[in-house]
Amino acid sequence: MAEAATVRRSRITPEREAELYTAVLDLLREVGYDALTMDAVAARTRSSKATLYRQWGGKPELVAKAIRHNKRGNISDIDTGSLRGDLHALTSREDDCTMQQNAALMRGLFMAVHANPDLLQAFKELLVEPEMEEFRRVVQRAVDRGEVRADCPALEYLMHMLTGAFATRTLIDDQPPTQQFLISYIDAVVLPALGAPTE
Amino acid sequence: MAEAATVRRSRITPEREAELYTAVLDLLREVGYDALTMDAVAARTRSSKATLYRQWGGKPELVAKAIRHNKRGNISDIDTGSLRGDLHALTSREDDCTMQQNAALMRGLFMAVHANPDLLQAFKELLVEPEMEEFRRVVQRAVDRGEVRADCPALEYLMHMLTGAFATRTLIDDQPPTQQFLISYIDAVVLPALGAPTE
Repeated sequence: MAEAATVRRSRITPEREAELYTAVLDLLREVGYDALTMDAVAARTRSSKATLYRQWGGKPELVAKAIRHNKRGNISDIDTGSLRGDLHALTSREDDCTMQQNAALMRGLFMAVHANPDLLQAFKELLVEPEMEEFRRVVQRAVDRGEVRADCPALEYLMHMLTGAFATRTLIDDQPPTQQFLISYIDAVVLPALGAPTE
Repeated sequence: MAEAATVRRSRITPEREAELYTAVLDLLREVGYDALTMDAVAARTRSSKATLYRQWGGKPELVAKAIRHNKRGNISDIDTGSLRGDLHALTSREDDCTMQQNAALMRGLFMAVHANPDLLQAFKELLVEPEMEEFRRVVQRAVDRGEVRADCPALEYLMHMLTGAFATRTLIDDQPPTQQFLISYIDAVVLPALGAPTE
């Protein structure tokens, strides 16, 4: 099976694959998951629908692969020596333009993941879990350094705090999320909730 | 103008109006804003499309009015004497079933408000602002009582904390938001971030 997959995969070049994923993410931001059709992907990338289905199997798989491809290389080895430094550095990996593109992407998927169990599964596996894993490492180091108590009840809500602020910024403030906003939120909310130094 | 509106409004009874709004909110949760058509509303409520347009003007207005109607009566005079008591009481106004219906409603609107400036405007005016106003009063009393410092930087992020946790719960934990979850989040995150007593 693995060999068969390799053979199928080899029909398109990595450059062509990257181009396709970019087109899928663009469409996703523009029209959302439900309105994204394989026809539209085929038209925009000047490929045949048959090729798309042969290569990826279907829409949830194509979208999940596109998102994973987009995130690849983002997993980092940030270790500044303080929780504040680490969280600021993680926030600063994406410039404001990328952050706003990702906010639009998230909106496009928010409704869809709840209506499509396959997409939700792919989304959690490929995006939420790796991100949580990364934050867990950062926080574990803070606990090891004595910056955060191991039994601090806010520990289990780190992702809710960060993702929630990112997701609700536009609705509440009529402004997209920016690095400056997230860093201010980390200092005002996340670090105090964790009882960690804010300076 | 106000008189003309009253005359037009008087054509349907309050009971019929409430029935219509319920149908609109049901459809919104089921299919989301984009797929919600005036045809579907007319079919489900056995009314004519002409009546709907004459009465409400259009889809954004009908949806905004339906949401406002749903929220009416929720503005309360909660004043328990502590910030923790007030926030817990505000969270407990909605039972878990209503909370989950509202989470589905929010998902249905999340993408749409960003694509429809009229809907975003109605959404902010009729939902976000009154809710923020209510939380502002609760927090101001906490400041007046000396529970929270007037210059606490987390004060401006109260809505991001609460709405964010509500919005991201399902995605992060595969479980819908519940009273229990929100109360635990308030104790673990919101009160410590505000420097307020957690007991």
